[in-house]
Amino acid sequence: MNRTQATLADGREIFFYDDVARTRQVHDTRDISRPGGGSELRWDAYLGEWVAVAAARQNRTHKPATNDCPLCPSTEERATEIPQPDYDVVVFENRFPSLAGGPALPPDFAKAAIAAGEDLTTVRHPGAGRCEVVCFTPEHTTSLAQLDVRRLRTVVDAWADRTAALLAMPEVDQVYCFENRGEEIGVTLHHPHGQIYGYPFPTPRTSRMLEQARVTREATGEDLFARTLAAERAAGQRVIADNEHWTAFVPSWARWPVEIHLMPHRSVRTLPELTDDERDAFAALYLDVLQRGDRLFATPLPYISGWQQAPASAEGTDFRLHLQLFSIRRADTKLKYLAGSESGVGVFINDIPPEQMAQRLREAGETR
Amino acid sequence: MNRTQATLADGREIFFYDDVARTRQVHDTRDISRPGGGSELRWDAYLGEWVAVAAARQNRTHKPATNDCPLCPSTEERATEIPQPDYDVVVFENRFPSLAGGPALPPDFAKAAIAAGEDLTTVRHPGAGRCEVVCFTPEHTTSLAQLDVRRLRTVVDAWADRTAALLAMPEVDQVYCFENRGEEIGVTLHHPHGQIYGYPFPTPRTSRMLEQARVTREATGEDLFARTLAAERAAGQRVIADNEHWTAFVPSWARWPVEIHLMPHRSVRTLPELTDDERDAFAALYLDVLQRGDRLFATPLPYISGWQQAPASAEGTDFRLHLQLFSIRRADTKLKYLAGSESGVGVFINDIPPEQMAQRLREAGETR
Repeated sequence: MNRTQATLADGREIFFYDDVARTRQVHDTRDISRPGGGSELRWDAYLGEWVAVAAARQNRTHKPATNDCPLCPSTEERATEIPQPDYDVVVFENRFPSLAGGPALPPDFAKAAIAAGEDLTTVRHPGAGRCEVVCFTPEHTTSLAQLDVRRLRTVVDAWADRTAALLAMPEVDQVYCFENRGEEIGVTLHHPHGQIYGYPFPTPRTSRMLEQARVTREATGEDLFARTLAAERAAGQRVIADNEHWTAFVPSWARWPVEIHLMPHRSVRTLPELTDDERDAFAALYLDVLQRGDRLFATPLPYISGWQQAPASAEGTDFRLHLQLFSIRRADTKLKYLAGSESGVGVFINDIPPEQMAQRLREAGETR
Repeated sequence: MNRTQATLADGREIFFYDDVARTRQVHDTRDISRPGGGSELRWDAYLGEWVAVAAARQNRTHKPATNDCPLCPSTEERATEIPQPDYDVVVFENRFPSLAGGPALPPDFAKAAIAAGEDLTTVRHPGAGRCEVVCFTPEHTTSLAQLDVRRLRTVVDAWADRTAALLAMPEVDQVYCFENRGEEIGVTLHHPHGQIYGYPFPTPRTSRMLEQARVTREATGEDLFARTLAAERAAGQRVIADNEHWTAFVPSWARWPVEIHLMPHRSVRTLPELTDDERDAFAALYLDVLQRGDRLFATPLPYISGWQQAPASAEGTDFRLHLQLFSIRRADTKLKYLAGSESGVGVFINDIPPEQMAQRLREAGETR
């Protein structure tokens, strides 16, 4: 891994990950300071979850013109967020973070506050954590699916390296590396990029998976994720593609019109644990899957794709790292909106049978 | 309550609720049959939730021209879903239901199946339940917020009457009466209408509220909902409006840019329990709140609004009926998309402090 660490003019950290070793001299010449505001965690006593209130983000950069892209390399005429004339992959702290800094959130903070007589509506904590931006390429008008496998591997290394670094911070419990792609899901910057969030608590979705892993272990003596992967591989009808180290499949209970999981064959909990071979194999399979996705409809697939990783606090409970990619597109001109049933009471209704979508994704590979 | 029950040509039930008593002769002259397909519940073993797969809905009516609206009254030239030349409020079974018929889903169906050796990926059940459509007015180009309070009261009576009827069906455990409003959230029919879903299980959001109600009762000896309402009324800063029987407030942990709860002052679990006075008071306050919402931005508010009601199976656990209205709009031209953090791991980030939104909604009432 070829990493260069530097600091932006306002004190934020920046990390360059290069495909091949090189020396970078980084000097951010801008006169900028960090926006104030910060965020606050509020305890939702109805659902038992934290909600982040981040007022400063309301005025963040919104769909800038291509010439104003803050994620392109800097030129002599224009200083961007990346003070280099070129880069391969770069990660830096978000200028408008939803979560930033400490202090660490004690695991039973809300419960203890309420037991101590704190009012249900005023259980709050500073918005601790970390938000970073990951640029996948210096080219403004391309996409992750169009990069070469070497670059994908560098992206994997960047994700893994930052996951390890964030998990080492006392204020971070779970690291989510993800990409929002497409205007249909609200992407405000078109330059190919992803984000990394370090949450100060196990996220609600992950907490539920951990609970079900416990339930499954108790009921059957087996690992929820190992058993699911084995069942999907045995059934085969929802498998899209695989290689020695990974399987890509549509889960039998897919809740989105397009939903794809990439699961490693070896039980690991976080990205840093992946071997070189596993990282190479992931890069090749993910590129294949992304390209299949882009062939499903008349235009490239809008999607959310992210790494489900174990929280630091979940030691001892079964969990397996996997990537979850999903899309709200259900036809060339139709989107699946989260309306009353999904957003109001949490019941997802999927109009496309998972077996049908898996078949289409398998066929989308054969046209290459 | 003035109700006329009839049957559509394909056997679906239809119910007319009139502002004043009248006699209706209903004859649906169309030659139609019910689309086949049905739906299936699949157990998401990662999250411990049911997902509905409803393939037949993929081809449902999508943004028809105004002249083809299936929710307008029928004319001599055109038979719509409503075989009457006029109506006040009408409810009928959805032609493209996500859930329909039986058999009832046993509460521990998934757990029992897995304990009995069923594979995690094949725990399934027919998509039992009920889906109905509620038309609020015969006028195609208006909205709930523009109706008079008498009509709103008839809508409340229709919701309450259908809730009682659906809860009496063995295959229904929880009834969700809701409205999706606005193209921004994917509304495919513009005629002012809502929907009623009868789910065969307690929905995920409701299950979590029931769990937190149990936790709160254990920790403090108090009712989660009574305590929250008392705290919001005492603090006052997030209260939008109130009357003798109801309070409208932005919850302190609001996860949406616009989120409004209307809570009754008396602890009731479902709509049928509301008295006449409480129904009248709700209609007046809801109309006020809807009108405030429509004044927030340059164009009317797109929203999802629905009734959180207790499941039949939740007897013995604290719960209080309340209406939850929320919107993804965060500025005149900006929407809050559910992206990676919200949809991928379940952590909501709200860019607008609840106190600020409550203030704006209070001010939106003063301009009348």
